Amino acid sequence: MTSHGSTRNSTGTNLDPWYHHYADRAAGLSTSEVRALFAVASRPEVVSLAGGMPFVSALPSELIRSSFDRVMTDSGPQALQYGSGQGTPALREQILEIMALEGIHGSVDDVVVTTGSQQGLDLVTKLFINPGDVVLAEAPSYVGAIGVFRSYQAEISHVALDDSGLVPEALRERIAELNAAGKSIKLLYTIPNFHNPAGVTLSRERRLEILEICRDNGILVLEDNPYGLLYFDGPPPQAMRSVEEDGVVYLGSFSKTLAPGFRIGWVLAPHAIKEKLILANESAILSPSSFSQFVVSEYLRTADWKAQIETFRGVYRERRDAMLTALGEHLPELSWTNPNGGFYVWVTLPEELDSKAMLPRAVKELVAYTPGTAFFADGSGQRFIRLSFCYPTSDTIRLGIRRLATVINGELELVNAFSPSGQIATVRQNQNFSAPPPNMS
Amino acid sequence: MTSHGSTRNSTGTNLDPWYHHYADRAAGLSTSEVRALFAVASRPEVVSLAGGMPFVSALPSELIRSSFDRVMTDSGPQALQYGSGQGTPALREQILEIMALEGIHGSVDDVVVTTGSQQGLDLVTKLFINPGDVVLAEAPSYVGAIGVFRSYQAEISHVALDDSGLVPEALRERIAELNAAGKSIKLLYTIPNFHNPAGVTLSRERRLEILEICRDNGILVLEDNPYGLLYFDGPPPQAMRSVEEDGVVYLGSFSKTLAPGFRIGWVLAPHAIKEKLILANESAILSPSSFSQFVVSEYLRTADWKAQIETFRGVYRERRDAMLTALGEHLPELSWTNPNGGFYVWVTLPEELDSKAMLPRAVKELVAYTPGTAFFADGSGQRFIRLSFCYPTSDTIRLGIRRLATVINGELELVNAFSPSGQIATVRQNQNFSAPPPNMS
Repeated sequence: MTSHGSTRNSTGTNLDPWYHHYADRAAGLSTSEVRALFAVASRPEVVSLAGGMPFVSALPSELIRSSFDRVMTDSGPQALQYGSGQGTPALREQILEIMALEGIHGSVDDVVVTTGSQQGLDLVTKLFINPGDVVLAEAPSYVGAIGVFRSYQAEISHVALDDSGLVPEALRERIAELNAAGKSIKLLYTIPNFHNPAGVTLSRERRLEILEICRDNGILVLEDNPYGLLYFDGPPPQAMRSVEEDGVVYLGSFSKTLAPGFRIGWVLAPHAIKEKLILANESAILSPSSFSQFVVSEYLRTADWKAQIETFRGVYRERRDAMLTALGEHLPELSWTNPNGGFYVWVTLPEELDSKAMLPRAVKELVAYTPGTAFFADGSGQRFIRLSFCYPTSDTIRLGIRRLATVINGELELVNAFSPSGQIATVRQNQNFSAPPPNMS
Repeated sequence: MTSHGSTRNSTGTNLDPWYHHYADRAAGLSTSEVRALFAVASRPEVVSLAGGMPFVSALPSELIRSSFDRVMTDSGPQALQYGSGQGTPALREQILEIMALEGIHGSVDDVVVTTGSQQGLDLVTKLFINPGDVVLAEAPSYVGAIGVFRSYQAEISHVALDDSGLVPEALRERIAELNAAGKSIKLLYTIPNFHNPAGVTLSRERRLEILEICRDNGILVLEDNPYGLLYFDGPPPQAMRSVEEDGVVYLGSFSKTLAPGFRIGWVLAPHAIKEKLILANESAILSPSSFSQFVVSEYLRTADWKAQIETFRGVYRERRDAMLTALGEHLPELSWTNPNGGFYVWVTLPEELDSKAMLPRAVKELVAYTPGTAFFADGSGQRFIRLSFCYPTSDTIRLGIRRLATVINGELELVNAFSPSGQIATVRQNQNFSAPPPNMS
């Protein structure tokens, strides 16, 4: 072997000797714009309205400490050991209680605990998607879901959304088009409550209509509901899973109602599917973390977790209010969604602006957001930005929106100043502006 | 919607309305024999020599408690938050120190923390395997790896192993056959140290020879090393990764040297590959558990983790000795491997016996083992059983081997009694005996 020489410390080359070795699906793995932003947003002087980190400091750490202490006293060896691939029975029972708050009744047998609900997304996609199969998703949709669907070579087809959520008529039309094209539509992925990134909530009437459309067309609904209990002005309509059992795979999570650091989410699956889901979970990770599950379970058993969720609601409600007020004050010419829960406001820019091209300028002004392009599989969405009010304080949010207004107004002045000379088009081209040129009249 | 009627509580049917909806790869998901055994082995009256659970009670829980307390005091909000998809820098630095004990020198940039090393296996397979691609693996091989490879529709090709591990000449021949058949060989999956299930260790000479064969043939080596530090009579040869950087993906784990309940493992990847691996990790789970990572990291920082590994070595060494002594005493006619570390002894039965068919009888005698068939992708391996000495005490191991001897001797008596009348063949057929009929002469 030594005659071949060691390749140790051979840094400095970007050549990948395994370049031709990757699976076809590896081409779907690319750096998300949100990910790149995490690095930017971590600089302390930047006001980040970009990330989706919950404000875990609103959770008294004493609640976690005392849960942990009891776990180690009562069940240390079990908490440190491998567990079942489905998750602990105690935690699955508690998850049923939580889902009952949104009208869901299911069996403890059909709950599968996962490494965050992201892993639930991954497993369901792995189970159902052949290369080229279609996943329907709202326009816009959760960036992390788009990434998972891509990684299994799904074709992602966006369906229009408005202030009442996914538009049933648009869904019908899209399904008809795809059927006419001979496509295999496997899943409708939807976030009915306090949508990420759009902030809107699907109305009850539409939930029923969409379930019917999907049933009629043999499409499995993947209902992703991490924010449902974090409402501000009143609860959202009951979950789609509450009225349809066999046609809905439901994804839940403790990341927003407790803390993401545990990486504990779950899938409530149609009974026929759950066995395959457990096998897929075991194949991927053997079993979810016993350590995390025991601590979360003990917390749910002994802490007033409903009061804690009420605390989170209060924190996020105040921040949502701060953001909407600041937007009205500093950017009255723009339009935005009015979320009744969750983490996000979706802002529509004047059509002359490009949110992706504007981002470096915003970061220079010490404010970060997520450009709308992150939430469309086809790279559109330049006119939108996602603002998150979950992590920064209300004062910081106000500062961030003021800075954002400076950036946007500066860009608009630039557009107006250069518009007659036609130079803007050149600038846009240099920035790889991929949408049709804006109306310059 | 109500006009369609609710399907709630519609239990009692095994019909799967989504039967035709699954991806092709879902056909690869089937219940492993090991999994079915977990249920059996959990009955307290059964001596289980079947599972692979580490003896976590040998870890003083005070070490975990104090690590957790310091984490919550010093970095509570970070431990409860989302983290980087690659894992925390502090833990990755510590992982480098651990790997250095086996001769591995790498960069903290090339370490990716995963949800147990099982997830590392899953991610690497997802990244490299197209349906029909070949993964070479020892005969026998780790049941959980076979499951992952199947779940991505790999063709698993077993290569002979003997007391010095994988046989290089057999590897050469197999590669030539597969190349001649036009197959695409992507990976060689190997457990060089204290093999699961075979208990053998790959010699240094063979490590170098196998690395050379794989380099010459453009095959990426997937070195799985969960047990390397758990040696009994002296350390194994240095890791394959210690002499070859670009051609080896190395999998490590805290499940055996600390505790599996944290679900913290890692991949040390060739630099060219690691970026894709991080993206695959983010796609699958967003980030590994911060909570687990912080506690493990604090444990490594403050506890005498090398002394703790020495404690584990002592526990497992004593149990290995108990098992080998009991085998020699009660089943002297059998042959078995002599592991210098790890968790497992691999026993060869008399050729008249079928380990899978014998299992129900063993459980009736209150002893469980894993039949060899679990460790071969083609369902062969009936003549072998895997015995694990990791979890039961030495006394329990001795009791289990006595019971196993009763079962085996009873089976042999049965074979001898019925052999002249030819009835054995009938019994075998009824038990779906799938191997060639044993030599009855």
